[in-house]
Amino acid sequence: MKFRRLCIIGVGLIGGSLARALRRSGDCGEIVGVGRNADNLRRAVELGVIDRYETDPARGVEDADRVVLAVPLGAMEPVLNAIAPHLAPDVVVTDVGSAKAWVLEAVRAAFGSLPPFFVPGHPIAGTEKSGVEAAFPELFEGRRVILTPEAETDPQAVQVVGELWEACGARVTQMSAAHHDEVLAATSHLPHVLAFTLVDSLAAMGERDEIFQYAAGGFRDFTRIASSDPVMWRDICMANRDDLLALIERYLNDLGVVTDLINTGNWDGLLAVFQRAKAARDRFTDGTPG
Amino acid sequence: MKFRRLCIIGVGLIGGSLARALRRSGDCGEIVGVGRNADNLRRAVELGVIDRYETDPARGVEDADRVVLAVPLGAMEPVLNAIAPHLAPDVVVTDVGSAKAWVLEAVRAAFGSLPPFFVPGHPIAGTEKSGVEAAFPELFEGRRVILTPEAETDPQAVQVVGELWEACGARVTQMSAAHHDEVLAATSHLPHVLAFTLVDSLAAMGERDEIFQYAAGGFRDFTRIASSDPVMWRDICMANRDDLLALIERYLNDLGVVTDLINTGNWDGLLAVFQRAKAARDRFTDGTPG
Repeated sequence: MKFRRLCIIGVGLIGGSLARALRRSGDCGEIVGVGRNADNLRRAVELGVIDRYETDPARGVEDADRVVLAVPLGAMEPVLNAIAPHLAPDVVVTDVGSAKAWVLEAVRAAFGSLPPFFVPGHPIAGTEKSGVEAAFPELFEGRRVILTPEAETDPQAVQVVGELWEACGARVTQMSAAHHDEVLAATSHLPHVLAFTLVDSLAAMGERDEIFQYAAGGFRDFTRIASSDPVMWRDICMANRDDLLALIERYLNDLGVVTDLINTGNWDGLLAVFQRAKAARDRFTDGTPG
Repeated sequence: MKFRRLCIIGVGLIGGSLARALRRSGDCGEIVGVGRNADNLRRAVELGVIDRYETDPARGVEDADRVVLAVPLGAMEPVLNAIAPHLAPDVVVTDVGSAKAWVLEAVRAAFGSLPPFFVPGHPIAGTEKSGVEAAFPELFEGRRVILTPEAETDPQAVQVVGELWEACGARVTQMSAAHHDEVLAATSHLPHVLAFTLVDSLAAMGERDEIFQYAAGGFRDFTRIASSDPVMWRDICMANRDDLLALIERYLNDLGVVTDLINTGNWDGLLAVFQRAKAARDRFTDGTPG
């Protein structure tokens, strides 16, 4: 895995951590950061995350043999439109978006068809922090990266992107974009909507300061994801709307069932739900720390 | 804060951690553990958590000048009935239950009226683990303990219980039982119901193994509380039913509003919810780690 020039568009938590991880891996040529905020990009240079920056995506991708799109999903299509005519002949392009069908649609719109050098990808990693200051090279270690190549995608490009993530310590796997979006709606998109909604719901209560004052560690863990970047998550809800709505509907139904159990005093039924949930979570965390 | 004999009824995470913390504080006489499971109690003796044990609560409280009830809420009334005739004349009794109105009702039922020596209490501390093996003496350090004395409660008993928790490093505060129950419904009881329901909902999906396989750290944090003790949480839902149902109703309504924003593509409205939630959580976590 060697490259002469990597262009990372969107130098935040994910883009910045990728740059740090690849630099550490040693196979790294120049890393060019692209963004709209020059202050942030200068900070990224100061921190040693990137070598230099451009605020114009067209200039950023010049002669880059690797391009990674790490912008919110809503910015994908404009960025793709800006870079499409300026990509190097031997480029491989990937992205880190949480909704793959949306990304594929944006790529097809920007290029007219899906170019063989574009490999849709998604690292299942992150923290509730955002911005380049929060980036760290170990973010992807032991984490999964899902690639969702289509029939048009060049297998060689898939291999290149896979090696790029493996150099960051990640485990790379493949599935269809549709399946990815369904799985992520369940494990990531729905929980974020539930957590944002809960915190906003409680924050609207009269005694909110007192409520939060008496919140214990469990509440802090449960709501951590509500400190995530609002724009990024607004975009994810937009991009994976149908899968997300189906999961919300399912959840609302199940929460209605649980509410009925409580309301009618069906404590055995409620206990059964709690026991199944605990068993499922204990099984999937599989003995690793909590 | 000195006592000759402390009887802890229910030697699990909370009762065991209290024993460990008080032993460490040094003002500690004998600690007697009471429970139904002799194996667990023997283990507690082996671990040095308690000095000896009784499986009969009536024998356990004999000549104890401090009694702490650390059993699930559903076991409160039977335990209170069993100990009521056997308490020492100078006893102070407290509990650690998460629903104070329920506990007060159980105490009034067991004693005919609220005895001045009973101080309702609730340490806002815990982990998703349960059992004496998970107990550790630092559990209460820097955490809040809420006492909810009534008009009948002896101020001297309140002071004794306050000092007991302060010896564990906790910060003691007071409020009414009704207010406690409302605040805890919001920050603890509702989130647990939401997390149990989510994990059970996903576990019922066909691709559940794959779903959990691709779950990242955010999901793990969000669902940690779904690994909590199901019996304890069934009892809490039972004991604080009305406050909890009111909060669930509020939450269902707010989740419905968010669902409508997504469904109708009101992305500015959705962004506003997410921004308010992030601001509220960032404010209440107040710069302390995540």
